[in-house]
Amino acid sequence: MVVDAGESTGAGRPPVTGTPMAAEGFAFSVEARDGAARAGRLTTPHGVVETPCFMPVGTKATVKAVQPRELRGLGAQIVLGNTYHLFFRPGTEIISAHGGLHGFMGWDGPILTDSGGFQVFSLETTRLLRDDGVEFSSVYDGSRHVFTPEVAMRVQEDLGGDVVMAFDQCAPGTLPGPELEAAVERTTRWAAACKEAHSRRDQLLVGIVQGGVDETLRRRSAAEITGVGFDAYAIGGLSVGERGEEMLATVALMDELLPSDRLRYFMGIGDPIGIVDVIARGVDVFDCVLPTRMARTGTALLRGGGRLNLRNARFAADLTPLEADCDCYTCRTFTRAYLRHLVTQKEILGAQLLSLHNLRVLLRLTRDARSAIRAGRFAEFVGHVAGRGSAGG
Amino acid sequence: MVVDAGESTGAGRPPVTGTPMAAEGFAFSVEARDGAARAGRLTTPHGVVETPCFMPVGTKATVKAVQPRELRGLGAQIVLGNTYHLFFRPGTEIISAHGGLHGFMGWDGPILTDSGGFQVFSLETTRLLRDDGVEFSSVYDGSRHVFTPEVAMRVQEDLGGDVVMAFDQCAPGTLPGPELEAAVERTTRWAAACKEAHSRRDQLLVGIVQGGVDETLRRRSAAEITGVGFDAYAIGGLSVGERGEEMLATVALMDELLPSDRLRYFMGIGDPIGIVDVIARGVDVFDCVLPTRMARTGTALLRGGGRLNLRNARFAADLTPLEADCDCYTCRTFTRAYLRHLVTQKEILGAQLLSLHNLRVLLRLTRDARSAIRAGRFAEFVGHVAGRGSAGG
Repeated sequence: MVVDAGESTGAGRPPVTGTPMAAEGFAFSVEARDGAARAGRLTTPHGVVETPCFMPVGTKATVKAVQPRELRGLGAQIVLGNTYHLFFRPGTEIISAHGGLHGFMGWDGPILTDSGGFQVFSLETTRLLRDDGVEFSSVYDGSRHVFTPEVAMRVQEDLGGDVVMAFDQCAPGTLPGPELEAAVERTTRWAAACKEAHSRRDQLLVGIVQGGVDETLRRRSAAEITGVGFDAYAIGGLSVGERGEEMLATVALMDELLPSDRLRYFMGIGDPIGIVDVIARGVDVFDCVLPTRMARTGTALLRGGGRLNLRNARFAADLTPLEADCDCYTCRTFTRAYLRHLVTQKEILGAQLLSLHNLRVLLRLTRDARSAIRAGRFAEFVGHVAGRGSAGG
Repeated sequence: MVVDAGESTGAGRPPVTGTPMAAEGFAFSVEARDGAARAGRLTTPHGVVETPCFMPVGTKATVKAVQPRELRGLGAQIVLGNTYHLFFRPGTEIISAHGGLHGFMGWDGPILTDSGGFQVFSLETTRLLRDDGVEFSSVYDGSRHVFTPEVAMRVQEDLGGDVVMAFDQCAPGTLPGPELEAAVERTTRWAAACKEAHSRRDQLLVGIVQGGVDETLRRRSAAEITGVGFDAYAIGGLSVGERGEEMLATVALMDELLPSDRLRYFMGIGDPIGIVDVIARGVDVFDCVLPTRMARTGTALLRGGGRLNLRNARFAADLTPLEADCDCYTCRTFTRAYLRHLVTQKEILGAQLLSLHNLRVLLRLTRDARSAIRAGRFAEFVGHVAGRGSAGG
């Protein structure tokens, strides 16, 4: 549940004692550790985020098929918006007129906006990489635009999220070495430019470390980005095609290299096992479109990492809920047979109910991870989650 | 709000004193009249329905894009399911295994199922009209089927709705006289067969009067159907292409011909002015797909009958809610600009939020109609609704 910043110093609660940040109204503290896993608390002007925390993705100012009031009920604490999409549709002018994204999308809890970089680099191929930024064509109408660190900062200031991201070049570990190195250099240069350009005191600016799965480049990027100096750091360039063990080794390396008292954000992980794996390596916050995207294709996510494809005929007369021990509205109310009926009949309600369940799986998982870390039982928790197996259908 | 049948005789509430019905657990009473308009109370095994009442349509066991828990919050008292669609997808066997539609769709309030006749007559053209029923091809897979009064009763008994409909031939007033007359004859014969075939004592069977907008045929059909004898009557064959004044004159005629102590159901009306018009002529219950269908095409319904097409560019920067005095979640939370953004970006949330609003408009309108009738101010209420005009865009 989101706790208002105002409430966090209220009756019975300790005052916020986290490491003070340059951004006004922000603080972060690691309150418990269990191995490398951490349980912490990020205070923002729009409320407190207990970590580890899964962040639902609200690409175009909506977590697809889910209402903001439902997000609260599911236990969501912070939502992500995509700068690229919002820049083009509806544009920052309209969002600013609403006092920013919070007012526009009806979510008064914390919001994080990405820098737009990921979409610029992944959505189209006619981009022109320049020293000062990227020239590219809009996927909406083909018009040409240039995103620079300065543009990314200005747009995110206009969007008005609580947490904003430095403009970086997301370079997958599968890139050739020289390209990966150039991306690291560019990311450092841009990070410094972002820090220089960013002026809103009520926003937390996050630096992003790149370097793929190359240890030397990761060390270099981490040194350079922490050298520029941010109050929180993101691990970029992972979950983009590299092998799983390389990814995890890189996260473990980041745990060693990043300052231990700063928030760490892993960009783009949404399967239960992967989430538990990165929490175990010191990550505090993560996001992914997986739960809502899978919901729209009729797939239910299970706590142990399994998946149920509800188009499968074997669910046609299955009178059990998606998961017997899930506390979401979908599992408390509907059978797999009903959900399969909705999915095969392309009923909107199917996407809604599966989105609620899939998000709840990850939000409950991370809530339980927080408790386990605080209780010093995280290893046991990991075993329990993994032990549920990934059986699906 | 739906009141549990159990609660209706609870502390502080008068016992149910309506006209007893043949069906067990049912009663209906007209509690107030204002001109021809009536405010009444239908008791069913799944709760009480205060009339006049708008009934959201849950075609395939879902009111499209709306969750059952939301229907309650909107003030829905009873939901309609379509026998034709449910017969084919998912089939009665799966629904029966859930204990009927209530368990299948997660709605524990009253449910009405139609007879399937409307779809059989409207969805395809290869049908073969027989004396005992209709042979037709499924829109799902082209397979041939015969619906008879006996089949319609058996299927509706399996679906397990509270209120079930006689199998009739929906004959629009635009049909040539001899065909309209044949439809009236067939509807009477089938009504008697339905009454004979229907055996579930915990379901209320409704007889349907046909006759288009022909006064002679309406009088004949009303006499014949009331002669067969039902505890509730539906006005069929209207809202299917006839002129508005003919429709209203026919409803007024039905008010004269139907027993005044029995429930009256007008099949298929969903615009605010039309609803007020039929309430003024003695109708108690009505349904329509209009509010949810319009929502899915990006159109908002207004209380005075107007409509807002949110694709219209004039809403792009409109910071006002759909209706300033609407109490729905959508109007309390979001601007027209945000809703237009969702609609133009084809976001599922757009259909959800517009469905909530459109349903609330009609459910609040009918709630207010009930109050107005009880207060003896219905004419004033009609003037107020009509006075809001139908301005939209």
